[in-house]
Amino acid sequence: MKKKILIGPSSFAQIDHTPISKLQDKGYEVLYNPFGRKITKKEIIKLLDVNVVGLIAGLEVLDDEVLTSSKLKVISRVGSGISNIDLKSLKNNNIKLYSIPDGPVTSVAELTIGMIINLFKKTVRMNELMHQSEWKRIIGSEIKGKNILIIGYGRIGKKVANILSSLEANILIVDPYISMESVSENFKLLELKNALPISDLITIHVSGEQCLIGKKEFDKMKKGSIICNASRGGVVCENSLIEALNKGIISAAWIDAFVEEPYQGEMTKFKEIILTPHIGSYTKECRVNMENIAVENLLKEL
Amino acid sequence: MKKKILIGPSSFAQIDHTPISKLQDKGYEVLYNPFGRKITKKEIIKLLDVNVVGLIAGLEVLDDEVLTSSKLKVISRVGSGISNIDLKSLKNNNIKLYSIPDGPVTSVAELTIGMIINLFKKTVRMNELMHQSEWKRIIGSEIKGKNILIIGYGRIGKKVANILSSLEANILIVDPYISMESVSENFKLLELKNALPISDLITIHVSGEQCLIGKKEFDKMKKGSIICNASRGGVVCENSLIEALNKGIISAAWIDAFVEEPYQGEMTKFKEIILTPHIGSYTKECRVNMENIAVENLLKEL
Repeated sequence: MKKKILIGPSSFAQIDHTPISKLQDKGYEVLYNPFGRKITKKEIIKLLDVNVVGLIAGLEVLDDEVLTSSKLKVISRVGSGISNIDLKSLKNNNIKLYSIPDGPVTSVAELTIGMIINLFKKTVRMNELMHQSEWKRIIGSEIKGKNILIIGYGRIGKKVANILSSLEANILIVDPYISMESVSENFKLLELKNALPISDLITIHVSGEQCLIGKKEFDKMKKGSIICNASRGGVVCENSLIEALNKGIISAAWIDAFVEEPYQGEMTKFKEIILTPHIGSYTKECRVNMENIAVENLLKEL
Repeated sequence: MKKKILIGPSSFAQIDHTPISKLQDKGYEVLYNPFGRKITKKEIIKLLDVNVVGLIAGLEVLDDEVLTSSKLKVISRVGSGISNIDLKSLKNNNIKLYSIPDGPVTSVAELTIGMIINLFKKTVRMNELMHQSEWKRIIGSEIKGKNILIIGYGRIGKKVANILSSLEANILIVDPYISMESVSENFKLLELKNALPISDLITIHVSGEQCLIGKKEFDKMKKGSIICNASRGGVVCENSLIEALNKGIISAAWIDAFVEEPYQGEMTKFKEIILTPHIGSYTKECRVNMENIAVENLLKEL
């Protein structure tokens, strides 16, 4: 019986078949995601049968129960984040893990810049009205000179900061894991509680899923400020965000990541919130590049 | 009888009253635009009565008929473009003209970058679907590595090029009025006919109103390319644009300037076209800054 590789992401190799061919050329049987969406925990336990030795992973729940019940030898993430994976269990089960920390950087940073401009210029709403033949000019703001707070100064945060510099924004950074020396001298490294009250826009690029921005943090923000989250869903508490919007603490938001996806919740009712369906890294260039690297990583280990 | 100043733009001094106060402090009576939209030629002839010595001008038609029938001594544009004004007639009627070439640069360039990102990432459509509780991921492209053609390498074109460099796009430039030496060595200066077939996106930042992109030019473009126009309405021929979109020559567009404004035409029917109501320079910072300079320019001359 052929050894099998399970492909987690439903969109894998849809643009370019090469990564699948590479697996097949090495004699593996490829098992696709049959659901057209994220595989649930129950489903993945069933799919990871005794012959599945490798997993090309998206954001599926890969906790101790899943990993221990599998016969996986290697997990290769098509992406950078690994917060969906129980690292201790990996070790106990002797499963190797690969990820692609640089993969999504360009795509996510570009998208973030575009959404920041949309939010300051209110263009999404005006475009909608224009398509209803309503000519309504809503005044926007320049990005130049605005205080933009970047929470999480990793690969993506750095790239966002650099592009925002070319837009002449003032860059503030919050990241407890870095020191003053690793930050460009044009940027200010601050504590969260000191940064929140002076920021015109806050954009989050952390790893991990724990809540960073809840009621306490919203209450410290500058009136009318804007928040962007392209990291993970839980990082900004949804209820607190909606409350802050209703109270006028924030004036607008962009959210690309959700605790539960596909998302159909309360935020869909607010025109002030730009919503995108977790597309940070969903570009042709990024997908093709990451898919090839993920397969190479997987094959390296098998 | 007090000398009068006519204010063309209906939005003038709505954010900050200072520029109006400056005029009143100097003893002038301020005549506002009573229509809440661009004043027509007929209307402006009536408004420019014998006591109106100064005009704070938007994009009103100021041709020989208007100027000769007026008693204007000075026209001060709140903006950079002067293609709405008959320069020969100004001279014949001994009317001084001021404009603010640098005023809109930052706002227009920022908006252009945001719309380019929207177009490559298809975010506007996905946001619309999310607000209808429809989770539909549409794959986008990276800006990095794309050939972006900037037609018109003036103040705005230069700023757009510099920001796009930080996004790692390949910058192509078409501008018959500049020489190789005035272009950064990282950019390519080309002839229009050679640039069109290799450009992934074309953005226009020329002055003047004559048609630059019509059927002949669309027919030379790369299949699936994108066009942006934030200069003047006539510069891209609307019928040719719609034809090119229907034929698949272009895949998307952003238009901020129209021959007739408020615009309610055919393009409103196309979701692939992002439409904004001539808001290139419509930001708080830009308006306040330009309104103050326009009044100072006017008073300098009176």
